[in-house]
Amino acid sequence: MSQDGFHVGVVGATGAVGREMVKTLEERDFPIASLRLLASPRSAGEEMTFRGESITVEVAQPDSFEGMQIALFSAGGGTSKELAPEAWARGCLVIDNSSAWRMDPDCPLVVPEVNPDALEMYERKGIIGNPNCSTIQMVVPLRPLHDRFGINRIVVSTYQAASGAGQKAMTELSEQTVSTLNMEPVEPKNFPHQLAFNLLPHIDVFMEDGYTKEEHKMINETRKILDLPDLEVFPTCVRVPIFSCHAESVMIETDEPITVEEVRALLTDFPGVEVQDDPASALYPMPLNASDTDPVFVGRIRQLPGDTHRVSMWIVADNLRKGAALNAVQIAELMIAEYL
Amino acid sequence: MSQDGFHVGVVGATGAVGREMVKTLEERDFPIASLRLLASPRSAGEEMTFRGESITVEVAQPDSFEGMQIALFSAGGGTSKELAPEAWARGCLVIDNSSAWRMDPDCPLVVPEVNPDALEMYERKGIIGNPNCSTIQMVVPLRPLHDRFGINRIVVSTYQAASGAGQKAMTELSEQTVSTLNMEPVEPKNFPHQLAFNLLPHIDVFMEDGYTKEEHKMINETRKILDLPDLEVFPTCVRVPIFSCHAESVMIETDEPITVEEVRALLTDFPGVEVQDDPASALYPMPLNASDTDPVFVGRIRQLPGDTHRVSMWIVADNLRKGAALNAVQIAELMIAEYL
Repeated sequence: MSQDGFHVGVVGATGAVGREMVKTLEERDFPIASLRLLASPRSAGEEMTFRGESITVEVAQPDSFEGMQIALFSAGGGTSKELAPEAWARGCLVIDNSSAWRMDPDCPLVVPEVNPDALEMYERKGIIGNPNCSTIQMVVPLRPLHDRFGINRIVVSTYQAASGAGQKAMTELSEQTVSTLNMEPVEPKNFPHQLAFNLLPHIDVFMEDGYTKEEHKMINETRKILDLPDLEVFPTCVRVPIFSCHAESVMIETDEPITVEEVRALLTDFPGVEVQDDPASALYPMPLNASDTDPVFVGRIRQLPGDTHRVSMWIVADNLRKGAALNAVQIAELMIAEYL
Repeated sequence: MSQDGFHVGVVGATGAVGREMVKTLEERDFPIASLRLLASPRSAGEEMTFRGESITVEVAQPDSFEGMQIALFSAGGGTSKELAPEAWARGCLVIDNSSAWRMDPDCPLVVPEVNPDALEMYERKGIIGNPNCSTIQMVVPLRPLHDRFGINRIVVSTYQAASGAGQKAMTELSEQTVSTLNMEPVEPKNFPHQLAFNLLPHIDVFMEDGYTKEEHKMINETRKILDLPDLEVFPTCVRVPIFSCHAESVMIETDEPITVEEVRALLTDFPGVEVQDDPASALYPMPLNASDTDPVFVGRIRQLPGDTHRVSMWIVADNLRKGAALNAVQIAELMIAEYL
């Protein structure tokens, strides 16, 4: 590890996830010698604050990565496809939040609590995938359950916040809400239809098989992260009119007999998970409480009387933190501790 | 059938469902000789309009049912427990929207498109159960699928509107939303926690097994309506910040091989169902479109490549109409056509 820390960059620094990345680097006291903030020409010139100092956002281009050691990307798939190899060609490791490289067999796709060993192959392309938000918060609690009981099937329905579609989408939800309450018409911009007081079973684009790309991500990324190529995952991804945090209603089926008590004990001990499960006092995970926090919250852990191989649960996490920025910074922390 | 129609009453006429019942009786031109509107002493004296005439709401009491032939109840379980037998003792048939009588083996629990023959035994107690809103909209499309393929398991996650908790709850969602946007504190009244921009995996009370009573209703009522006492139903019921309509993410497992094409064909032909399923043009059921309409909308019908025994779908209906008032009036229509 460098004496004075690392030369770090954030690409897409002005976006919802980019801002959260900068904030997370500061909060977690990441060892930084220099920080460069990069973005598209549209956002370049903007000033952002890091550790009390103002930093001017620069245009992201191949030469930006000269002398840089670690770059956190959250600038969309196109930018990642183009610039991530340029960064690694200059010796700069990329941790990429887009979906561009996630399924590349030469790129690790990592949730630090779940599959840290996958990082070993990072030198093949110098690009590490940060998984999709919905996938991250699901695989964290499923890891210890799979290790103990063997998961063979997952049925999941998501309740995803506007922030997953970026900062503009959050503003739009707010504007749409005001318009609706004032009986004014709504013209959707960042969503396929009005989101305020509505539900959209449509995140990312539709694929030929009738599933959305978001649902494909949950299937394919879960399989890759858990290293279970045949795992059966049945996802339904739905955008709901809340600002932040994704929630998931998850049912798992296991090879071995499983009980609620065992699940609760395993999850209580697992890093990154916080069990919030006391129905008697109306305690269960909720977006309002999970917002701006780090853990993956799990509650409503239950099993139908007489059943021995299925458990249902309700999982909530801040999609911009553990679902994106925090997980990327945790990968960077693991990389500097083990490999750099 | 009486020459001039029936002597009809609505108990709980001033509530969200009660008002919808009165509106539905008018819209569907139900043959009515006289209509009495009944409620608790708190709401008595209020004026409501039916077919252009003003009707004064009276206090519901045993004598109210003298000379009445059909009473639609939506006044809570306590009132139904007490007054429904009094009504039948006076020869007045009760169609009850509360959960008080639904699981009574001597009371039919009916969705007209699904199990009309259950009405045959109505004379045992003179009380017909109107099922829970979440259950009704699920069993309508599942009926033809079960008849053809044999359903052995249902995994369902709901997205339920504020209107399911009554008129006050809808007003509260509106007030909470305004407060939140104005950065003012929210004090929940009709919900266990703030609902605005939040999700509550908690509808009705919690039972000892960790499931809510709402979830128990989905299990038990589905089994009774479909006459499948051993059917496996895995529900998660969640309140979401929308005003009206419930949505459901449903996966079924079948005994016989099933395909998306067969499901679509069967549902297209089934009464009460409207298939809205064209991902290419972003067409799928949404609360905003289903609100104030009668059908159960089904879309996102899909199956994972290679699978032969599971299909997922997205079901949306107006919980106050097909989920409550409309279904009750449809039961009444069936009763006067077949039995009264």
